[in-house]
Amino acid sequence: MKTRQIAFAARPDGEPDAATFLTREADLPELSLGRILCRNLWVSVDPYLRLKMHDRESYTPPLQIGEAIPGRSVAQVIDSADPAFARGDLVAIQGGWQDLAVVRAAHAERVDPSLAPPVSWLGALGMTGMTAYAGLLSIGQPKAGETVVVSAAAGAVGSLVGQIARKKGARAVGIAGGAEKCRRVVEDYGFDACVDYRAPDFATALAAACPNGVDVYFENVGGDVAATVTPLLNDFARVPVCGLISQYNSASRNSAGGPDDLAEYMRWILVRRLTVRGFIVYDLAGNHPEFTETVAGWLRAGRLREQFTVHEGFDRIVPAFLGMLQGRSFGKTIVKLAEPV
Amino acid sequence: MKTRQIAFAARPDGEPDAATFLTREADLPELSLGRILCRNLWVSVDPYLRLKMHDRESYTPPLQIGEAIPGRSVAQVIDSADPAFARGDLVAIQGGWQDLAVVRAAHAERVDPSLAPPVSWLGALGMTGMTAYAGLLSIGQPKAGETVVVSAAAGAVGSLVGQIARKKGARAVGIAGGAEKCRRVVEDYGFDACVDYRAPDFATALAAACPNGVDVYFENVGGDVAATVTPLLNDFARVPVCGLISQYNSASRNSAGGPDDLAEYMRWILVRRLTVRGFIVYDLAGNHPEFTETVAGWLRAGRLREQFTVHEGFDRIVPAFLGMLQGRSFGKTIVKLAEPV
Repeated sequence: MKTRQIAFAARPDGEPDAATFLTREADLPELSLGRILCRNLWVSVDPYLRLKMHDRESYTPPLQIGEAIPGRSVAQVIDSADPAFARGDLVAIQGGWQDLAVVRAAHAERVDPSLAPPVSWLGALGMTGMTAYAGLLSIGQPKAGETVVVSAAAGAVGSLVGQIARKKGARAVGIAGGAEKCRRVVEDYGFDACVDYRAPDFATALAAACPNGVDVYFENVGGDVAATVTPLLNDFARVPVCGLISQYNSASRNSAGGPDDLAEYMRWILVRRLTVRGFIVYDLAGNHPEFTETVAGWLRAGRLREQFTVHEGFDRIVPAFLGMLQGRSFGKTIVKLAEPV
Repeated sequence: MKTRQIAFAARPDGEPDAATFLTREADLPELSLGRILCRNLWVSVDPYLRLKMHDRESYTPPLQIGEAIPGRSVAQVIDSADPAFARGDLVAIQGGWQDLAVVRAAHAERVDPSLAPPVSWLGALGMTGMTAYAGLLSIGQPKAGETVVVSAAAGAVGSLVGQIARKKGARAVGIAGGAEKCRRVVEDYGFDACVDYRAPDFATALAAACPNGVDVYFENVGGDVAATVTPLLNDFARVPVCGLISQYNSASRNSAGGPDDLAEYMRWILVRRLTVRGFIVYDLAGNHPEFTETVAGWLRAGRLREQFTVHEGFDRIVPAFLGMLQGRSFGKTIVKLAEPV
């Protein structure tokens, strides 16, 4: 059986564009024992993909030219060779940027629409939510009365981080691009404050929003934003490094900063006794068996807000990804490919 | 009562020199209740002092011009206004670079010569030893079979770190300046290997000495040495940041590296999921109540080797400090001022 899919056509030099990708018909693997055939209903586009486009190892080997683009999806089982799933079931899988996917049933997570809307498995109940939850709680460890600063606060992960920080009694201060995003971070997500990193008074405004300094900086961005946060970090502050989107488009060695930034940063680590720790969600997921129940409870009770920027149709996958990288989205960016039947 | 003491005369621009200091007679505080009057027998000279000479906050406020130079010492009580200590007792104190000191008895640690030679309270049994022990065990957390790399391996802290790492079953690889130091790090301290950072093949030699990568990098140095270690770090490696001696002489914002080093470093933190954590010994000391007993046991059994570069006489304090900063010492640098009586 064949599927329409998006593959990696050319390694981008700087910002990716349409020429980075190609659409093709591809053969699906056999539906051998233990596998399920799924139709992707919603697919996720994620910043980490840009990191995989450099010709350097990151978490995983770099994307190879011609390789199908990976990505989480919420999908519907249309044929099953595994007793755990039946035709019609909804699942969250590594479905990729394609219409159909054959995956191992053992790697599929059941989507239970009685708990939350299915798209939540790409948002608060999925890798996005686990990244926010586990990164903040395992590494950031916010305590009541502390200040948590989150960059990319209007984004998929950041918007959840601030809300969870507030549930722990911390002050949540977001950083986002533009006054409109900042307004929504406060009004929609309930952050205590949100500061526009594009504003000329960014550093002053951030310091004013953090009168007691910063105890946790949840890093999604890097670069100049990070450099502005660093001097505000209190002794023993924690910096979960979740992403560095400001530098993903750069060649491997590049920075917005000056020549002395690493020495300066190391000095802060030393004298403030900072803990800076990189993570990816798979490292921490096992620490939090309560995750789905807790977050689904918050969603049902209206105590956690998630928002999606939803694009419609296969041809919107690439534009959705490019727009998300450029900061032109709010909350979690997904693309709807089909209706459940 | 008066004492001869060394004070901070001028903020150095780059490397400190004799003009950084002045020697003067100074009044001692009153020997009020709860205090002891001590004669310094051995005083310690430490790299962190250089960090305090910049006009910027570090762990503590910067040294002010005219301020007496602080430092640990092993001293003998010559008069006591506290029942805990009597004339003749040996103590480890914040005695400073002076002949006599009045300190609070509650801040004095008893030196027990039956446990170890008194100078060990400036070495393996003192802040130096606790820095190595607590930094390695609390933050580095080496496991059997892992590889621990230590910069400034011939220095006071580094030489202990490698020995303790080996006791935990780890492979200890030192980095030091010059073939002679490297030889002694292996022969005297029993490291598995030691690599000369001044040699043209440093990077290649370090990689060869760490065939399974690096799980713990105990950071004493920063700069180019650190940049050479970083790409060798394994997933989930730990980097206790104890010191950054290569950058202490620089103006506050300076680095041996290029403009892109911070972005590159953050990328390693993210993709390798590193934990980089700054510390000073006082943060961690409480975690290790077993420290003195354990380390004294190792010393008595000949299972931990400490070496001192001992200078003699008050006039040698400043040269000892300057030489230590320039890497012209081995093990812990101390200055002997008087004999116990």
